[in-house]
Amino acid sequence: MNGNVIVGQSGGPTAVINSSLAGVFRTAIDRGAKKVYGMRYGIQGLLDEMYVDLSDYIKNELDVEILKRTPSAFLGTCRYKLPAIHENQEIYDKIFEILDKLDIECFIYIGGNDSMDTIKKLSDYAILTGKTQKFVGVPKTIDNDLALTDHTPGYGSAAKYIATSIKEVIRDGNGFSYRKQLVTVIEIMGRNAGWLTGAAALAKGEDCEGVDLIYLPEVPFDTQDFIEEIRELLKEKSTVFIAISEGIRLADGTYVSEAGGGSDYVDAFGHKQLTGSATYLANLINHEIGCKTRAVEFSSLQRSASHLASRVDINEAFMVGGAAVKAADEGDSGKMVVIDRVSDDPYQSATGVYDVHKIANGEKTVPREWITERGDYVTEDFIDYVRPLIQGDYPCVMVNGLPRHLYLK
Amino acid sequence: MNGNVIVGQSGGPTAVINSSLAGVFRTAIDRGAKKVYGMRYGIQGLLDEMYVDLSDYIKNELDVEILKRTPSAFLGTCRYKLPAIHENQEIYDKIFEILDKLDIECFIYIGGNDSMDTIKKLSDYAILTGKTQKFVGVPKTIDNDLALTDHTPGYGSAAKYIATSIKEVIRDGNGFSYRKQLVTVIEIMGRNAGWLTGAAALAKGEDCEGVDLIYLPEVPFDTQDFIEEIRELLKEKSTVFIAISEGIRLADGTYVSEAGGGSDYVDAFGHKQLTGSATYLANLINHEIGCKTRAVEFSSLQRSASHLASRVDINEAFMVGGAAVKAADEGDSGKMVVIDRVSDDPYQSATGVYDVHKIANGEKTVPREWITERGDYVTEDFIDYVRPLIQGDYPCVMVNGLPRHLYLK
Repeated sequence: MNGNVIVGQSGGPTAVINSSLAGVFRTAIDRGAKKVYGMRYGIQGLLDEMYVDLSDYIKNELDVEILKRTPSAFLGTCRYKLPAIHENQEIYDKIFEILDKLDIECFIYIGGNDSMDTIKKLSDYAILTGKTQKFVGVPKTIDNDLALTDHTPGYGSAAKYIATSIKEVIRDGNGFSYRKQLVTVIEIMGRNAGWLTGAAALAKGEDCEGVDLIYLPEVPFDTQDFIEEIRELLKEKSTVFIAISEGIRLADGTYVSEAGGGSDYVDAFGHKQLTGSATYLANLINHEIGCKTRAVEFSSLQRSASHLASRVDINEAFMVGGAAVKAADEGDSGKMVVIDRVSDDPYQSATGVYDVHKIANGEKTVPREWITERGDYVTEDFIDYVRPLIQGDYPCVMVNGLPRHLYLK
Repeated sequence: MNGNVIVGQSGGPTAVINSSLAGVFRTAIDRGAKKVYGMRYGIQGLLDEMYVDLSDYIKNELDVEILKRTPSAFLGTCRYKLPAIHENQEIYDKIFEILDKLDIECFIYIGGNDSMDTIKKLSDYAILTGKTQKFVGVPKTIDNDLALTDHTPGYGSAAKYIATSIKEVIRDGNGFSYRKQLVTVIEIMGRNAGWLTGAAALAKGEDCEGVDLIYLPEVPFDTQDFIEEIRELLKEKSTVFIAISEGIRLADGTYVSEAGGGSDYVDAFGHKQLTGSATYLANLINHEIGCKTRAVEFSSLQRSASHLASRVDINEAFMVGGAAVKAADEGDSGKMVVIDRVSDDPYQSATGVYDVHKIANGEKTVPREWITERGDYVTEDFIDYVRPLIQGDYPCVMVNGLPRHLYLK
């Protein structure tokens, strides 16, 4: 490589998005990049000429290791969709002017669907205008909804966090179960794809009863059926645990959170507020059945709990970062690196490179046959798919009792 | 010891309450107890003659280690306050009948304020009626609100979980901060004592900005002042993080959660619902200032996240369990084991034994001088007090990607 590399992070962060950044940095340096720039806040920051020289922050091997364990986007992130080329050519000229000025040879963007759209448009524009920069995407999303890749970096660690936390929530709930009934509804991220919610199934094992019911957005949610299932379960056990996706919808397409609580909840200031689906359903169960209920949300920790990252995930995130630089340096553009599953048992994976035009804006959901017929749990095939991705730990570097992160002031 | 030992767990669980149980078991066996019984669901289960022989579950040294890492009450817990002796002597007769039948010599109860009340009443009753059983309490509560002990087992691990999670929430929030303002309100457990909320201050360090404001229940909450402080902060920075206790109250004693959202929030079924204080304040900030806000609750994970337990805490919990058996075996009754801080730096602690009559039903809150004058943060003295308690890790035993727990079916 003769020129420089620039890398950005975009969209919702994950626990391992910085491991990909570390992989990009390492491979770029190894392949002779003179400078490795980092865009602040993705393409949005770049348009304001906000970038850093990563060598100012990653000064040694220890920094690389700490960066791999740092949650959220080290460089900052954005949700910014480029306009179509014919709609606003100026914005593209501006970007390429900055890239030329920085002598950029490889442009690497770590992100999800929208970010791959950015890679697609920039590489298209380069071809249209005869620019020589190469544009390669690195997959990232806890939602695991990107097409063509077996799974996305970030998903395994989020799944590990969710399964671990659910085991702890179940122990907590069952400790209090004497002579009373308790139904706990746990809300998990994922608007359209149930990959993350399905990972709740991992909690069940030799030392844990697991959750009783799992509802994904892929199957229409039937409120009557839901209440009926809980009634049945409460005949046999005093505690019931349910995992639902934030995105579950009724047959008519209305989100459960809108259909119920949302429409009636006016806050103290007269504003309509959406209650979460879990809060709404917990209230519904209490109203219909009369038992005590509890709503649990894991909030942004699902995507930022690097203290529970999976080793498989951290390593794969690092690997795809490096593979993207290699691909761009070897002349690929308009591509995304993917993870191919080479073997299930023992689990093995390798990187591949796909045309980003086939990926951008697509959305991969959970196959219907991996969900039970009644739509209330996932199948063994689902569990076999996800279990390898949560394996192994990547212990934090603990300083004074807390995980140390790499910090960009 | 010639007879048997019985041990129970009571009140809200912690990440290390089972480490105390392990300590009781180990010392009881070491001191020659023939049997170590565990009450199911505390004194409430015992009244229904629900108990187990712990040797059936803790079969070897590995089981002891796994028990130390198992969250929530292994034996199950209850919230059950014994009536005054003169009110209902029958219930006491029933308990002692069971204890006699099981040839109990030492009765150990792991819990908080209410549980120490149980120890007090049972030991009083034994003295009144000439019974020979000894009753000793083991402190436990994430709230850290027990009198006479320097701190309570469970507090350090909860503080470590909160500080770690807050660091991750801050990284997540700051990643998105370009060209927009975001105020995050984090709600932490603690109805009357702010010990846990104050631990949010630990997040600040070389690699983290920390939270900007901390509000404890010990100081009346002034809504106008609160909004004013946020307005000031937003002039200088785009993200503001605030930790509040669930128990913050206005000057007239009304809980913030009641004063605001609570009174206006009627759910879809026409029931009044209490919104959390964080949700209410996040809505308030959005209404008054107009910026984006986010409410985060850590829910029951604060007391059950054994995957992030502090080594100091696990070891002290084990130590006080053993010390309670030793005290009872040596003839103490109506006592609670406490932790004395022998030295701050290096941190050293030892157990002591206090009269439970001086402890039961008392509540230790954060000293006013450990809170800033404006009531919006804690002082260095507070931080120096809590920091030693989060030190060291106690890594989970990971099986197939998840922490293994000891499980009582």
